[in-house]
Amino acid sequence: MNIAVAQSGGPTCAINSSLLGVFRQAAKYDNVDVIYGSVNGIEGLIKNNLVNLYDIITSDDEVELIRQTPSTLLGSCRYKLPEYSKDPCVYETILKTLKEHEISAFFYIGGNDSMDTVMKLNRYFKDNNVDISVIGIPKTIDNDLPVTDHTPGFGSAAKYVATTMQEIIRDSSVYSIPSVTIVEIMGRDTGWLTASSATLRANGEIAPHLIYLPERKFSVKEFLEDVKAAQEKYYAVIVAVSEGIVLDPEEFDEDYQSGKVDNFGHKYLAGVAKALTKIVEKNLNCKVRAIELNVMQRCASHISSKRDITEAARIGAAAVSTAMEGNTGKMMYFHRVTNHPYNVRIETTDVENAANRVKYFPAEWINERGNDVTQEAIDYCLPLIQGEQNFHMKNGIPQHYVLKCALPRGNE
Amino acid sequence: MNIAVAQSGGPTCAINSSLLGVFRQAAKYDNVDVIYGSVNGIEGLIKNNLVNLYDIITSDDEVELIRQTPSTLLGSCRYKLPEYSKDPCVYETILKTLKEHEISAFFYIGGNDSMDTVMKLNRYFKDNNVDISVIGIPKTIDNDLPVTDHTPGFGSAAKYVATTMQEIIRDSSVYSIPSVTIVEIMGRDTGWLTASSATLRANGEIAPHLIYLPERKFSVKEFLEDVKAAQEKYYAVIVAVSEGIVLDPEEFDEDYQSGKVDNFGHKYLAGVAKALTKIVEKNLNCKVRAIELNVMQRCASHISSKRDITEAARIGAAAVSTAMEGNTGKMMYFHRVTNHPYNVRIETTDVENAANRVKYFPAEWINERGNDVTQEAIDYCLPLIQGEQNFHMKNGIPQHYVLKCALPRGNE
Repeated sequence: MNIAVAQSGGPTCAINSSLLGVFRQAAKYDNVDVIYGSVNGIEGLIKNNLVNLYDIITSDDEVELIRQTPSTLLGSCRYKLPEYSKDPCVYETILKTLKEHEISAFFYIGGNDSMDTVMKLNRYFKDNNVDISVIGIPKTIDNDLPVTDHTPGFGSAAKYVATTMQEIIRDSSVYSIPSVTIVEIMGRDTGWLTASSATLRANGEIAPHLIYLPERKFSVKEFLEDVKAAQEKYYAVIVAVSEGIVLDPEEFDEDYQSGKVDNFGHKYLAGVAKALTKIVEKNLNCKVRAIELNVMQRCASHISSKRDITEAARIGAAAVSTAMEGNTGKMMYFHRVTNHPYNVRIETTDVENAANRVKYFPAEWINERGNDVTQEAIDYCLPLIQGEQNFHMKNGIPQHYVLKCALPRGNE
Repeated sequence: MNIAVAQSGGPTCAINSSLLGVFRQAAKYDNVDVIYGSVNGIEGLIKNNLVNLYDIITSDDEVELIRQTPSTLLGSCRYKLPEYSKDPCVYETILKTLKEHEISAFFYIGGNDSMDTVMKLNRYFKDNNVDISVIGIPKTIDNDLPVTDHTPGFGSAAKYVATTMQEIIRDSSVYSIPSVTIVEIMGRDTGWLTASSATLRANGEIAPHLIYLPERKFSVKEFLEDVKAAQEKYYAVIVAVSEGIVLDPEEFDEDYQSGKVDNFGHKYLAGVAKALTKIVEKNLNCKVRAIELNVMQRCASHISSKRDITEAARIGAAAVSTAMEGNTGKMMYFHRVTNHPYNVRIETTDVENAANRVKYFPAEWINERGNDVTQEAIDYCLPLIQGEQNFHMKNGIPQHYVLKCALPRGNE
């Protein structure tokens, strides 16, 4: 039998480690012949664009390089499968590719949207008595997939956020004049990553002094009160804000976001920190700076979490075992057994439990005022950012592995 | 005798290493008693706010932590000394502080503006027969100080830029749709740091495909032509642009910068990448993203260059020796003797040769079209980004040393 694996959605530092987990575990099975990689996620199955991973991963050196390379080795996509009833063609095309290559298990590494694909493909196969296993492997820096304690990719992003936030605090605190620094952190609907900035407090930092998550309605009026109150105590006020918080048009009527949407109907965010600096400038007399952590928070593999990278490989490997045991339509997930010592078990759930659903940051981990998180949030995040990878450097720069055939034209 | 040292201007990853260089070298002299740190640069001498560094740096562990802490241990300032003829008071106040503490040598670590302070103080002392040595120790991520081959802080910033640019390239190249990513890099008047993004080519990356420095007049029309031409070859076009390039109001009439200026009359920049994305969106049909490397490029000590950190300590130590030999009114500088093998000598120049002057990126290292840099730029930068520091981590986050008495109120 042959198998196939693909990567989907936004890049992370851990998604290539999950790919390696699938590859190395599958290689242990005598009955698995070819391990295919589908280029650009599900698009590779639609366009019959597959690569044989045995041709690509030929040595331990390559494994090491792929592990330290961020983003998706096989490319990615934001392709949303249509409902089968509306467009059966694309399903038949995918099935044709899978059959042509005698693929009997397909592993899809991705987030909420990718689990939608896993669910739809699995339903199609079941309805048509096709014996192909489809397994979802979670991934997203947003950490917003339901069921799982956390998602691969989140730990590395959280480590980047904490490390960078600390450096920003040092940078912002050097002058003897009052200042407000507003750091915008990714998180479409949920504040997990923004909340992770509070882990710094485990090292004695007080900042960020204010933390705003999209789980709470944002009030410009209260925000200004909060900043004023913080300025009574701190010259250099540090604010962490999720890109997903929404400014009430009645309180701020400028258009601060592009309004564009992706194939899943999700808005491209970014811009709220800049909008907030305008509000602070207008109302308080001090130096203000907006900082977007931008794509760096999802691709800064040079400061990735070793635990995250290791767990990503483990959950990829477990997905292969799950398929080999005859399962399909499942998403792998982490169940945190204990926090001290940190101990997780990898389990499976029906993919319906995760697809198109959102795991919000717990309301009880947000303080009453809605401008900070509690110790529980810190305790939750800390184990996930532990450890550093040993890096292969070349010319003073981390060495990346680039799969030329998976790149769009010209970028090889 | 006692000595004093202060840090000034924008933070870097290497300025604390220079401080340690001064401290450890001065500690070797039997005739040096107290080594003072002046809090918030020259402001500490004006406000008589000094700390005894022997009280602060008491063990090798502290030395290690201070070395890996970015920004300025002693705080910083953007204070411009008035002309003596216009305001002698402040000079007399500074002298009073120095005399009260029996300080006979003052070391100022900073950039172009700080060398202005060194020059003015030295002139005042000479004119008034005051026997206090004043020595400038260069520092700036902009690398725009004249005379010196390069400035401490630049190598670490360049290593961050190259490392991060590579990660951004990975992140930007995953989708099978055309895109343009515009990365904005610091550099008020000069393009040194933006040019350093080209060092990636030593590792086989082609990107960034377009590089724009402030040394060349920027044309929106030519920029659009360049991007279009790049899109013929590359799906994911990567552009590196210096914050200091100026959009001609006749070509782009929106106000894209805050217009604010600091005490030296320098404009706060930032915003040009965002402005360029608007231009690309309007004229070319593709996904566009602006990324500001923001303050991270000057404070991301977790990916600092070991050579930069080591050289910063060496030049700080050399400054002490220079003062002890009876010199004053000097700036220390690096003279690059050979590139292969990399070899620099530390020498001294009259501070007048550096103060208030700018070292521009060489015109002959920019290509004819003004949208790229030459191999010379890569050869120049590569030696400066070599090596990594061993980091003390705590709770999965790099450990910083914070001097509480040097922080503005509330941030301790």
